[in-house]
Amino acid sequence: MNTVFLEHSDLRIDTPRLAARLDALAQVGAIDGGGVNRLAFTDADRDGRNLVIGWMRDLAMDIRIDGIGNVIATLSGRDASLAPIMIGSHIDSVRTGGRFDGTLGVCAGLEVVETLKTAGVTLERSIEVAYFSDEEGSRYPPDALGSMVYCGHRDLESALDTVGIDGTRLGDELARIGYAGPTPSPGTVPHAFLELHIEQGPVLEHEGITIGVVTGVQGISWQTITVSGQSNHAGTTPMALRRDAAVVAARIAVEVREIVRTVAIETGTPQVGNVGSIRTFPGLVNVVAASATLTVDLRNTDDAALTLTEIRLRDFCAATADAENLAITEESTARSRPVSFDPHLIDLVARTAELLGYSHRRMPSGAAHDAQEFATICRSAMIFVPSVGGLSHNVGEFTELSDIGAGADVLLQVVFAIE
Amino acid sequence: MNTVFLEHSDLRIDTPRLAARLDALAQVGAIDGGGVNRLAFTDADRDGRNLVIGWMRDLAMDIRIDGIGNVIATLSGRDASLAPIMIGSHIDSVRTGGRFDGTLGVCAGLEVVETLKTAGVTLERSIEVAYFSDEEGSRYPPDALGSMVYCGHRDLESALDTVGIDGTRLGDELARIGYAGPTPSPGTVPHAFLELHIEQGPVLEHEGITIGVVTGVQGISWQTITVSGQSNHAGTTPMALRRDAAVVAARIAVEVREIVRTVAIETGTPQVGNVGSIRTFPGLVNVVAASATLTVDLRNTDDAALTLTEIRLRDFCAATADAENLAITEESTARSRPVSFDPHLIDLVARTAELLGYSHRRMPSGAAHDAQEFATICRSAMIFVPSVGGLSHNVGEFTELSDIGAGADVLLQVVFAIE
Repeated sequence: MNTVFLEHSDLRIDTPRLAARLDALAQVGAIDGGGVNRLAFTDADRDGRNLVIGWMRDLAMDIRIDGIGNVIATLSGRDASLAPIMIGSHIDSVRTGGRFDGTLGVCAGLEVVETLKTAGVTLERSIEVAYFSDEEGSRYPPDALGSMVYCGHRDLESALDTVGIDGTRLGDELARIGYAGPTPSPGTVPHAFLELHIEQGPVLEHEGITIGVVTGVQGISWQTITVSGQSNHAGTTPMALRRDAAVVAARIAVEVREIVRTVAIETGTPQVGNVGSIRTFPGLVNVVAASATLTVDLRNTDDAALTLTEIRLRDFCAATADAENLAITEESTARSRPVSFDPHLIDLVARTAELLGYSHRRMPSGAAHDAQEFATICRSAMIFVPSVGGLSHNVGEFTELSDIGAGADVLLQVVFAIE
Repeated sequence: MNTVFLEHSDLRIDTPRLAARLDALAQVGAIDGGGVNRLAFTDADRDGRNLVIGWMRDLAMDIRIDGIGNVIATLSGRDASLAPIMIGSHIDSVRTGGRFDGTLGVCAGLEVVETLKTAGVTLERSIEVAYFSDEEGSRYPPDALGSMVYCGHRDLESALDTVGIDGTRLGDELARIGYAGPTPSPGTVPHAFLELHIEQGPVLEHEGITIGVVTGVQGISWQTITVSGQSNHAGTTPMALRRDAAVVAARIAVEVREIVRTVAIETGTPQVGNVGSIRTFPGLVNVVAASATLTVDLRNTDDAALTLTEIRLRDFCAATADAENLAITEESTARSRPVSFDPHLIDLVARTAELLGYSHRRMPSGAAHDAQEFATICRSAMIFVPSVGGLSHNVGEFTELSDIGAGADVLLQVVFAIE
């Protein structure tokens, strides 16, 4: 704890003011049910960017925009030679997204700035509030593309050449909305990176806990598995002569759950797995399926356990292909190693929540976030607040105002306390 | 055995002449790979009908057409007061069909007639050769619609009102191609019904057998099963809190095979089952599936065993819904009881194949056929010949010319021998 923390430990953010910004931003690209559609680099994304930049200007912050459209606003500290503390997240959304995902982290950053200004407090380090382009990756995969470019994990030119799901080129759409800025990439390295985000899962609500102290982000392994059998008449082909792609795809889906269960027990790690899509061809009631594809999403905070899960699945597929007399191929469509946040910052978030009287627990993030890109270039941490019903990427996404205020107050006090 | 059989037991059909008719018919609606597309009541179907009616006229047969477009041609026998022997099948096809499915039975019937005429033989009973409308049911479900109407299993008006997969009304398309005839439905009941057909499965080829003595048609049970779970984030939702529709659909698909296997063993019946389609919603790699649908096709020649299979599947679904905390509903989309052909005709087909020196075996039909409709109104039987590779409903459908000739010769001798 430093003296600043002790000095300003009674300072609190203005929750209604923060809620008003979230409400205003939720009107941009609003869709039925209370959600938003602000896919990256659409007109709605541009309108949301313009609104937030207006708030940054109102707060007299210095604004810079880089070549992928990341927007960073600075509130100067007393010592311009020190690296700033960056608070960041995103304001783009999935097609049928909620109003809190990403926006909470950005608006809370602005609320921290406004709280400091209102209280007449100037910190030693500058504070940066940033929103990063295309975090969702829904229009231009992969996700977190803007923060990848900022952190030097992806070069700008290849990112601009990304072709979207609608056939457009990212760089063209970025220029069209007027957000291709001059600031070079990779960006300057902050002293620390902080992100307040909704949990997007049910754990905090389920356990009645207010603050999630995020220890890291799960490693992710995505595969598309294709089973190639033989199409046959469903009435006339004896069972023993079938090379049934559908039933084999089903066996793999069932086995994914079993492998995940046993790896979690054996390794003591939070292994999860999902088969989100199963498709069969030709997909007719009276035809034995010729082929089937399924997607597998495996995640773990422990890379060795995640790798073990992948190996067991591959072994099962190989044995099943032999036993069923058909071909099974696996294509890796995404693979990221787990990210751990800074132990000292994790402790600081936990201590701050404790001092402010909020229940809290340490937990990994199951979803990807901008903060995971920063974790490899500077000390980084995340703060979670509960998602009602665990809903996210859904118009019904909701977080209680009291939890929003709690998360933003923890963020504010962590900013004071960072050494 | 009657005297006619003994009298004409050395008479044989003209295989090249039969093959020439099959070849000519295969040119109508021909598609790449050697197959045909003669969906019911399309221009191609009309052109095929016209070609076959021309042959019937060439053979000086009396032709009648009923209100669903079934065409029946008669070669008069010596005693007009006796019910005729009917030989029938169909000439419509699936969208990417083969050249033998249905057409073999019709062309073989004409070949029987031409063989009789060429030899100067007039039987006591008249011979009818028929092709029935919409046997495939691919454009206007269900299958065997024409023979259903002929046999009084479906009323004409409702059949004409059938809406096709292309949104057209069956009656309108039938009138458009000029095949809405005046003969009333149901049609006159024949003395016996015979159908020569390709097996559409691999059993005869697999066992090196020429003639399949068809004992009946499997009962069919089709269901669409819907699993309703809850959509959730695949990274953030603990495994224990998921209500995963995809994995439950997969468990059901795997269990279908297991239930089929055990029922077959326990009952000693040829139970088969197929899950041809599995679909998941929203079907995204990183979202736990909210819902899933799968189709189940169960068939057996034994109705009690088929019912047992249905019950076991329903029980499994109920128990699984409870265990997985989600909803599972089953909708029956088709259910037919098994059909048994006439025991005396079955014996006659077997004895005839034996007398002609062809290897033969008794077997059920896994597929539906026009003959199953006739089985409930008159003595009926079917003769199968091998399908190379078991292929059918496929442009690669093929049967050796020697097998075609063998099947047609068995058909001819059975016609002689029917008492």
